[in-house]
Amino acid sequence: MGIQLYELVGAESERRFSPFCWRAHFSLLHKQLPFETIPWRFSEKEMLAFSGQGKVPVLVDGDRVVVDSWAIAEYLEEQYPQQPSLFGGLGGKALARFVTDWVETSLHPLIFCCVATDIYNHLAPSDRDYFRQTREAFLGMTLEAACGDRENRVLQLRERLAPLRQTLQYQPYLSGEQPAWADWVVFSAFQWSRAISPFPLLATNDPVFAWREQLLKAFDGAAQRSLAYAA
Amino acid sequence: MGIQLYELVGAESERRFSPFCWRAHFSLLHKQLPFETIPWRFSEKEMLAFSGQGKVPVLVDGDRVVVDSWAIAEYLEEQYPQQPSLFGGLGGKALARFVTDWVETSLHPLIFCCVATDIYNHLAPSDRDYFRQTREAFLGMTLEAACGDRENRVLQLRERLAPLRQTLQYQPYLSGEQPAWADWVVFSAFQWSRAISPFPLLATNDPVFAWREQLLKAFDGAAQRSLAYAA
Repeated sequence: MGIQLYELVGAESERRFSPFCWRAHFSLLHKQLPFETIPWRFSEKEMLAFSGQGKVPVLVDGDRVVVDSWAIAEYLEEQYPQQPSLFGGLGGKALARFVTDWVETSLHPLIFCCVATDIYNHLAPSDRDYFRQTREAFLGMTLEAACGDRENRVLQLRERLAPLRQTLQYQPYLSGEQPAWADWVVFSAFQWSRAISPFPLLATNDPVFAWREQLLKAFDGAAQRSLAYAA
Repeated sequence: MGIQLYELVGAESERRFSPFCWRAHFSLLHKQLPFETIPWRFSEKEMLAFSGQGKVPVLVDGDRVVVDSWAIAEYLEEQYPQQPSLFGGLGGKALARFVTDWVETSLHPLIFCCVATDIYNHLAPSDRDYFRQTREAFLGMTLEAACGDRENRVLQLRERLAPLRQTLQYQPYLSGEQPAWADWVVFSAFQWSRAISPFPLLATNDPVFAWREQLLKAFDGAAQRSLAYAA
C-alpha cells in the first residue's frame, strides 16, 4: 500500500483548504513521492482514531502513522534522504522551524481574520457548528466580527510580509535558488486563503505576488489546478 | 597583518553600538579568528576611503577589503570553511538571509525608536549633528518625537518577537543546538540597544530574555564584558 494523506476538505471533497495539510501535500510533491489523498471533515473524528488523535494532516506510510505537518516533513526528510531535500541540511532545518513559527504567529492570525466567514460558508453543513463554536471560543468573538475589518487586516498582513519581500531582493526563493519547505510553509498559508475565499491577500505589483505565481506553477501546476479562487 | 574590523563607536572608543558591526564582530568570534578592532566615528569618512565607501563594518583581511555585515559573513564562511560554520550549509544560508531581513524590517525600526535619543547622547560631539540630521530626515520627525512613545514601542517589539519565542519552544537556539549567524543577527540588535541605552527591551520572564542571557555568556562573555548597560 502506497502513502496516504488525510486532508481537510469543505463541502466539496476536492476543496482542500487547511494550510497544515497543504504543507504535507507540498512536502510529498517536493519529495517526488506518489501518494493518495483521503478527504476528511471535522465531524469524522472516528476516521482518525487509528492515529491516536483527531487532527489532520495524518500521513500513513506502510505501518508508520505520522501526525502534524512539521513531524511529517521531518519523517519524509529522514525516511527518503535520496529524494530532493526539504531543509537543505541541519542549519536549514533549524531555520525552517523559525520560518514556520513566523508564519503561524505573524501571518495565520491575520489571514484567518480575512477568510473565517468564507471558510464557514464552504464547509459541509455537518461541520459548521463545530467550526463556529471552536473558533469563536478561541477568538472571543463571532466569525463575522473577526472578518468585519478585513480591509484593514489585509493591509497589516502586507506589512508583515516585509521580511519576505526584502529576502526576495536577494534570491528567487526563501530557500535560495529553488523552493523548499520554508517556501511551502508560507505558500500554504496563501493556498489556504485562495482555496476558500475570493478575497485577494496580495496586490498584483507585490514581489510576493510574483513569488506566489511561480509556486502556483510548481509540480505541473498542482496548486493552480486545485479547486480554488483566482484570488 | 591579521584581520582588522572597523567598528562604529560613541564618544568612548570602547562603546561599540552598531548592530551591523556587532554582527561582524560575532561572526569573527564564531569563526574563532583573531582580529583587531579599529574604532570609527561617523565624522571619520576619510578613514574608510580605502574601502570605496563610507560605512562600517569594514573588514580587512590581508589584501581583501569587505564591506557590509552580510558580505563579511559570506566572505568568512567561504574563506575559512574549516572553522565553525555560520550558516550550516546552503539551506541554512538562504534562511539566514530571511532572519536577517526579519530583524531589519520588523525589529530594528522599533528598537531605533526606543534608543535614538540615547544614541545621540552617547555620540562624540563631532558626530551629533550628522546623526541628528540624517536620522531625522529619514524618520520625518525629531529623535525626541521618535522616542516619545517608547513605552508602547517596546510592547510592540515584544509582540514582534513571537516567532522567535515559539521557535525557542522547539530548540535552544534559532540555529538549532548551537548558536550561529541567525542567532548573532538577532542578538546584535539587542546588543545595539544595551550598549547605548538603559531602557530594557525584554521582560525578565520572557524566554527570549533567557536566550539572550546565554548569548551574553558566549565567547567567554565577550558581549557581557563589552561597555554596556545592564538592560
